[in-house]
Order: sequence, then structure tokens, then C-alpha cells
Amino acid sequence: MVATGICRTDDHVWKGFFPNIDYPVIGGHEGAGIVESIGPEVTCVKPGDKVIPLCVPQCGQCDCCLSPKANCCLKSHHPGNSKGLTYGTSRFTCRGKQIHHFLWISTFSEYTVMPDASIVRIDDDAPLDKVCLFGCGFSTGYGAAINCAKVEPGSSCAIFGLGGVGLSVIMGCKAAGASRIIGIDINKDKFMKAKELGATECICPQDFEKPIHEVLVQKTGLGADYTFEVIGRIDTEVSALASSHMGHGICVLVGAPPAKSQLSFDPALLLTGRKLIGCLIGGWKLKDALPKLVLDYMKQKFNTDALISHELPFEKISEGFELLLSGKRYDCPL
Amino acid sequence: MVATGICRTDDHVWKGFFPNIDYPVIGGHEGAGIVESIGPEVTCVKPGDKVIPLCVPQCGQCDCCLSPKANCCLKSHHPGNSKGLTYGTSRFTCRGKQIHHFLWISTFSEYTVMPDASIVRIDDDAPLDKVCLFGCGFSTGYGAAINCAKVEPGSSCAIFGLGGVGLSVIMGCKAAGASRIIGIDINKDKFMKAKELGATECICPQDFEKPIHEVLVQKTGLGADYTFEVIGRIDTEVSALASSHMGHGICVLVGAPPAKSQLSFDPALLLTGRKLIGCLIGGWKLKDALPKLVLDYMKQKFNTDALISHELPFEKISEGFELLLSGKRYDCPL
Repeated sequence: MVATGICRTDDHVWKGFFPNIDYPVIGGHEGAGIVESIGPEVTCVKPGDKVIPLCVPQCGQCDCCLSPKANCCLKSHHPGNSKGLTYGTSRFTCRGKQIHHFLWISTFSEYTVMPDASIVRIDDDAPLDKVCLFGCGFSTGYGAAINCAKVEPGSSCAIFGLGGVGLSVIMGCKAAGASRIIGIDINKDKFMKAKELGATECICPQDFEKPIHEVLVQKTGLGADYTFEVIGRIDTEVSALASSHMGHGICVLVGAPPAKSQLSFDPALLLTGRKLIGCLIGGWKLKDALPKLVLDYMKQKFNTDALISHELPFEKISEGFELLLSGKRYDCPL
Repeated sequence: MVATGICRTDDHVWKGFFPNIDYPVIGGHEGAGIVESIGPEVTCVKPGDKVIPLCVPQCGQCDCCLSPKANCCLKSHHPGNSKGLTYGTSRFTCRGKQIHHFLWISTFSEYTVMPDASIVRIDDDAPLDKVCLFGCGFSTGYGAAINCAKVEPGSSCAIFGLGGVGLSVIMGCKAAGASRIIGIDINKDKFMKAKELGATECICPQDFEKPIHEVLVQKTGLGADYTFEVIGRIDTEVSALASSHMGHGICVLVGAPPAKSQLSFDPALLLTGRKLIGCLIGGWKLKDALPKLVLDYMKQKFNTDALISHELPFEKISEGFELLLSGKRYDCPL
């Protein structure tokens, strides 16, 4: 591994909020690196290749991979699946004790091992310290707007949460031609970057006496055409749904709430025509999509460098987590 | 009014489960009749016209009517709107006391009054005692499959609840070319009609030890492509969502739960790519759609006569409610 991002989901793993994890585990799922060696039947990469590990694999053979409408490969690390690698084992040990893999890829490690469904070769000239973001954060947010919501030109969008993924949603909405892009966060320090990347306005819920969904409905007439929850909190998920257009609004849940959360709302919110949709890694089939997205980055189609707030050496990873958590105050209920 | 159907929603009104109702009220919203007289500015119908009252109006001027993606006309009887007729008044009295209208149309009455946004002329030869069903039940179910879910040929569908609307969903799924149509009801008496109208199989949850969503996922591999909840119960709404394909399933909520219900589920159900969508009167803009649907009926495109279980004179309407309630055991929690 040459570089890895730190995602809120890694914090869920750290704190025990991610479902179906065996501990001890090596986290990390947004990385980029160079192949050191391959197993005997691996043909998709060779030593020396620049690669991005896939936090959602693409085996190419399961019902989801074969469907044009799904991207949740059945070889995903998912509650319904085995938690081990392909052969049900781990490749990590520490002082003789087994350490578990996370999402098969465990990028918080100088060396890691993954199945061939979970890796893709990218361009030889790609800067790994920049394109590691394509392994999760950027692809998740950008794809949520482009693939999942299918944002249309001239539409209005509201994005709850302006971390790296939320900013990537904004970039997707802008690329899709949305005419109004409203960023929502309780941390106003994030507004400048959001506007730089495409938000047409940013608001802080604490600046209003009424609930934020009422503010957004008032601002947009009947609600925003597309809303995105990019925090992973139940209360903001409901707000995002209620903020979407009553007659045809699409609310995309991007953030991953803590395991065993219960989303609870009056189904009358949906009756008038709203849609509530889920979204895994931006709806991309990653093995197909990432090499192209990286090439688009190299052609300067995306300013994803703006998403990088800090660069730290690996031994300061805990400091990275502190930076992540200090930048947002939407923390998980413990 | 020449004929009216009785819908489960009328039972909600009777029992106080429908939101935002003023009592006393005249219910009924699935009728057909003949215009007796019109107000001075009404041009869309004239005395003698055969008409269907619209339980969701189409004013043609509001943001929802002007959008090709919405059908929840802002002149709808909806919690956000005034509850009176256009001029904020009622046209019914009983012994000098005001009686309220329901959804502007109140079809449980020999004579009723409605705004011009809530009525549409249909073909002069249409049999009113048959096409009254197009005012709600048939259109709601058929449109849920055709317009809201957009069922694709060769797909699998599961329908929770085999009343008149559920049977109409089956007809829509069949018309759309679904290859597998699974009906679910705890009342097996409904299975024969469901199969006659297009269900390829019917199952009763009480015949299985495991939860019905597990049964359906097992039957279909990864869940049905499209699921429909056509009862209006929170527990079956969650079952329908969990029964839909994990990677791209679309769950359509057709049934109207009692007011102030709370739908509660783990949002991880959506994360893998499911969509939960609402659906008002089958997604139709009724003023545009109903005349055409009635003509299609007259060309025998739909066998909606099969949905009519009993015909009673108006004075036996209470008996009609008893028949409705005896035919299903999914009753509202009081």
C-alpha cells in the first residue's frame, strides 16, 4: 500500500459500529498501491501494477455482477457472507495470533492480501497518493449523484454533511448540471470548500429555529428534487427524506449508520411520490469503473485533490483519525 | 352518483385512521355518475356527461401538475391544504348541521358537489357500475406496477395483500410481462381469483415457520425484482422491503397505513441498492389518464369486472363494509 484515506466507516469499525466484524481487525478500505506478488491463479494483475483495492468486489459471475442494475457483488464482505477470505482464512498474524481482514482489503497496512475480485489495475502514471480517494470516498459521493439519484440538469439538490463524501456528492450534482446545490452542515468551516466545489449556498441548521427540513422546503418550494444524507445518522436521514420534493423527490442514503440502527418515519412521507433509495459505493461496478475514473482524473475532469485536507506518514494514522473526528461534530451515539 | 366502490381507505375514515379529517364527513372516493348541474365557471363537464370524480385532483396549474414526474396535485385534500372545498365551505348539511367532504368528492351520496379540478368526463357508453373502480382501486394497483415500479418483462414480483388493489397490481405486473408473480395473503380464499388474474403462485405466511421475507428471498434467489405492499400495515411494509432484491429491488408502498404510523427498519436494508418508493393513485395524472383507461376497458384490455365481488343497493352500504372487512383479516391495530 502506498497511500490510504481514512473514512468515517473506518471509525465505525474502530468503535464497534460496523456490522459483522471479527476483531482484532486491520481496517482501511480507501487505498492505492503496487502489486508485490500474486497467487498462482491470479491473472487480472501482475507484480509492479499500480492498483486500487475494491471495498466492494466485482467477481463478474454472481447474479449482482451479471445484472446491469446492481453492484453489490455477492462476494462482498456482507452480513450474509463468510467473513474470511476466499479460502476462509486470514493472511495477517501478530505474535502468532490471527488478525482479521476488513472488506477483504485492509488498507491500513504496509502490505496486505486480497482476492482477485477485490483489486483492479489503474494507469501506470496515476499518482497513488491522490487516486486512493477513488477507492471509496470520491466514487461513493460522485456516483450517488450521477448513478443513484441520476441528477438532472436544472434541478435542485440538498446535501446533508460536507465531509469528503458530501463534497464529492456536490461535485457530482454540479457535473450533472444541477442549478441549485445546497450544502448543510453544523460546521461552518466546511462551507468555503463546499462552495469552491459547486455548492450554490450553504446553511447551518443551528442558525434556524424551525427544523431544517422546513427551512429547505421553504427555500425550494416543495422540497429539493434530490437530497443526500452523507453522515450516517438516523435523524438526518429522516430530515433528508422530508426535505425532498413531495411529489417526486429522491432521497439517497449515502452515509452508513451504526449497525442495528432503526430508521423510523411516517410512511405518509412517501405516499405523495417520494423515493428513498440506497446506494453502495456510488452505484459503480468498481472493476469496470475505477480505471476510467482515474483516467478522467488524470485528464483533470475532477478536482479531487481539493478533498485532501492533510497528508500524514503512516505512523501518524491515529492523528489522522483525530483530525477526521475533530472536523465533524455529528458523532455517533455511543 | 350512479355507483361507488368501497375502499379500505374509507374504512380508515370511518374508524378515524385517516389524517386531517373533520367529522361528520361523507366518505367514498371511488365512484362514477352523471353531471346534474354545473357552476357558472365550469367548462370541463356539462349536465348529462358521464363522469368519474377524482380522488386526487388535477388542477393543471400547480408545480406538481406541471411536472411530468409528479401527480400529487397541490389542490389535493392533503394535510398541507385547506380542508374545505375551493371556497372553504361545505355543500352538505344534515338537519342544519354542516357535513364535511372527503377528498373533495364524497361518493357515498346520491348527489355530491366537487370542484372542477376533481372531475373528468368519460365515454358516454361507459358502464358506470363497472368503471367506478377506475376512480381508485384499479388505477391505484395497476398504475403501481406500470408507472411507479415500472415492472420490466421477465421480472419477478411479489404482492402483499390480495384485495381489489392487490389484484390490480397483479394485472399490472402481468400486463408488463413479469414472468413470476407471487401473491401473498393470509386469506387463502383469495388465491383463486389472484391466479385467474395473473399470479403464478400464491402463498400464505402462516404456512411457513420462517418469516415471509426469508421465504420469498429463498424462492427468488436474492429477493423479488419488485415488491408491493397493498395492505397498509407497517409490518408488511418492512417485509415487502426485505423481500425485494438486495441489489436492485424496488419496493412500492401502495397501501395507506393509519395516520401517524411509524415505519421502522434497519437502513442497511437499503444500502445494498434497494429502493423504497411511494405511490399515489398509481402515479396517474387522473384527468389525463382516466378517460383513456375507461376506453381501454371498453376495448376489453382489462378484466376489471373480475374485481367486483358484490353489488348492493346504496341503502345496504353498511353491509358492504362488513363484506370488505370479513374478506380480510389484516385489520388495523386500534
